[in-house]
Amino acid sequence: MNTRFYHAKILMLAENHKFEVTEGELWVEGDTIRYIGDGTDAAPPAWDREIDAEGNLLIPGFKNAHTHTGMTFLRSYADDLPLHEWLHQQVFPREGQLTEDDVYWLNILGIMEYLTSGITSNFDMYFFPPVNAKASADTGFRTVQTSGLNNFGGTVELMEENYHIVNELSDLTSFIVGFHAEYTTSKELMEGVAKLAQKLKSPVWVHNSETKIEVDECKERWGMTPTQLTDSLGMYEYGGGGYHCVWVEEPDFEIFKKRGLTAVTNPASNLKLASGICPVKRFVDEGIAMAIGTDGPASNNCLDMFREMFLTSTLAKVREMDAECVGADEILYMATAGGAHAMQLSDCDSLAVGKKADIVMIDLKQPNMQPENNLVKNLVYSGSKQNVKLTMVNGKVLYENQDFDIGFDPAEIYARANAIIGRMK
Amino acid sequence: MNTRFYHAKILMLAENHKFEVTEGELWVEGDTIRYIGDGTDAAPPAWDREIDAEGNLLIPGFKNAHTHTGMTFLRSYADDLPLHEWLHQQVFPREGQLTEDDVYWLNILGIMEYLTSGITSNFDMYFFPPVNAKASADTGFRTVQTSGLNNFGGTVELMEENYHIVNELSDLTSFIVGFHAEYTTSKELMEGVAKLAQKLKSPVWVHNSETKIEVDECKERWGMTPTQLTDSLGMYEYGGGGYHCVWVEEPDFEIFKKRGLTAVTNPASNLKLASGICPVKRFVDEGIAMAIGTDGPASNNCLDMFREMFLTSTLAKVREMDAECVGADEILYMATAGGAHAMQLSDCDSLAVGKKADIVMIDLKQPNMQPENNLVKNLVYSGSKQNVKLTMVNGKVLYENQDFDIGFDPAEIYARANAIIGRMK
Repeated sequence: MNTRFYHAKILMLAENHKFEVTEGELWVEGDTIRYIGDGTDAAPPAWDREIDAEGNLLIPGFKNAHTHTGMTFLRSYADDLPLHEWLHQQVFPREGQLTEDDVYWLNILGIMEYLTSGITSNFDMYFFPPVNAKASADTGFRTVQTSGLNNFGGTVELMEENYHIVNELSDLTSFIVGFHAEYTTSKELMEGVAKLAQKLKSPVWVHNSETKIEVDECKERWGMTPTQLTDSLGMYEYGGGGYHCVWVEEPDFEIFKKRGLTAVTNPASNLKLASGICPVKRFVDEGIAMAIGTDGPASNNCLDMFREMFLTSTLAKVREMDAECVGADEILYMATAGGAHAMQLSDCDSLAVGKKADIVMIDLKQPNMQPENNLVKNLVYSGSKQNVKLTMVNGKVLYENQDFDIGFDPAEIYARANAIIGRMK
Repeated sequence: MNTRFYHAKILMLAENHKFEVTEGELWVEGDTIRYIGDGTDAAPPAWDREIDAEGNLLIPGFKNAHTHTGMTFLRSYADDLPLHEWLHQQVFPREGQLTEDDVYWLNILGIMEYLTSGITSNFDMYFFPPVNAKASADTGFRTVQTSGLNNFGGTVELMEENYHIVNELSDLTSFIVGFHAEYTTSKELMEGVAKLAQKLKSPVWVHNSETKIEVDECKERWGMTPTQLTDSLGMYEYGGGGYHCVWVEEPDFEIFKKRGLTAVTNPASNLKLASGICPVKRFVDEGIAMAIGTDGPASNNCLDMFREMFLTSTLAKVREMDAECVGADEILYMATAGGAHAMQLSDCDSLAVGKKADIVMIDLKQPNMQPENNLVKNLVYSGSKQNVKLTMVNGKVLYENQDFDIGFDPAEIYARANAIIGRMK
């Protein structure tokens, strides 16, 4: 499938996490970007489709660097509750009833929502990674799976098995070692994770310092922060990172730098569950890599990178009481290249020749994108799902003008999701 | 124009700021809702249009209770700057160059964006209220204008003139007394405002306690908070309220209660300009009326009630470190009936027989609205401009499936907005 975009504005990654807009053509051959230019200095292939972008903006697809996609069934099911009650009385009892088949359909609902928000890949932690990966492969969506291993579910052996199954399933699916969190996982199990990561030469990912109580209790148990503890267990020989990273402490920043870890921020979830506000400016000032995630739809409640980008920037500003800090280019970098770095998707990080064709067309002919004073700021501060005109993953258009081309009827997916939660009421 | 909505879910206001969803038909005759029910117990008029809602949700239009619509030209022009530098070096010099004609077109751009977000009326403070009102009347949009009077522009006499011009212009336009802020307005001018409000029996509205420095300096100047000072000048004999209300102090809550004032929160702007987080829970607990506004597009940078609703709830939660506080129904009440109360639009506050037909159809057949566990929570926590299928103001459909019916070509409006800011670069 060869696709020509013409009359396009194209968002190119420049130096120092900045972006530049060029005008012209972008050519996709198969799954790869083969040409960006004015179209006069290269020989085009035979086109399967030519898309007049009409002056709209092509951007690299967003990378959702932390989520639990299969939790779509719990959207708006139980909100406005304290975290403990929410988890133990609402979430866990219902998750316990999920079958592999349920999770397959719930993943597809989440993937549909990602596509509406210009998200072209997710870094997913949920039950049944091979099932989640199959839902991605079947719909044409790119996914990186990790394990949510903890004392209540999973084994290191099963994780190793899933690592191979998912990595071998499809070009679109990969697996990185991970586990749920220090507060849910025994030291023995964590030691097993570290050994597996070293054996597989894999980074390790974990929920890290999401709440104050998590950090306080970890320090009581071990005399160390979650970052210090996991580092002391040899987790990060091949890098990795933490999800949330709200309550990180002074020594943690040094470990993030020394190990080259990425901090993934999940601002909407951190607000809604009253967890706190991530010290984004400090991470940026320290030169620590950052990425952005939606967290799962039960705590957010939506899967929308525009909302997360706005929050990541503006919560940094209000946290530091400094309107100048963490500007729009830095945020857009986190949401695209930063996420790709975290997810080991370096061939999907930007629009450039040789990169995979994970591309979003942004509709600029909407009032919230006008005037065109600064397209990056328009995207980060004013952008909305309404502006996503087309989402292409791996060279294939999966979403365009509110229609999906993923091999499933949306009405069927909605009916299945309603039936799954309906069964549990 | 008589319009029948059928196969609809209809969001009805219940007691205690709660909502209920009913299913059936909603009939609009002229500018008014004439019937809600199953359609079997009333005689229909001759229909000009019958709309199959296909199970989608009708809600009352959102009321944007504080904005500066004409600032659309400055969207993404200057961001990531400290407030003082932003205002004095970027905003004021360019606003000084605006003509009445410019402001007319910039208002229409803003009105278009409101319609995409299901906003059916705005409470607007900007230069040239009669021009702003004319842009609303010409497009069919409902507006409440107030004055931005301060030491650098306007007079009490001009405000009185504008009061009559705007109130008499159209059924869609009205005017309430206001001025910019304590820190920009002399005591003599404020006393003039208070006298005018008493003469006209009008509420008074003002930017109040937006930043800490504003409150600190007011207390230095007058030994009183902005709320205390304005109250002491006799401003609130007929009520009114404050925009922003971030740094309100203990005695201020009593004044809000005694005078029946409304606090309008503007959370996106307060984050982006690093002003702070409004004590929403405290206002709600005190039983003080609240409403929600976007503030102007230069500081936000978009006009999106979905984003503001999510922020109003979740910032309250993280401010209080209490995930339970300020739930979804309370927020939706603020964004609809609360705003209508603030704007003296009691005939537009809800979907009920006899109310004006300011109605939004929400597309539930989108992944972010599924499953349908709780439609109010879906709206507040997961809703997006993408879900606005149709916006009707005063019985006329102004926006439907991304097309506008406002008497102007969007391309022309975008070109004018780009030309206005282009002239100033």
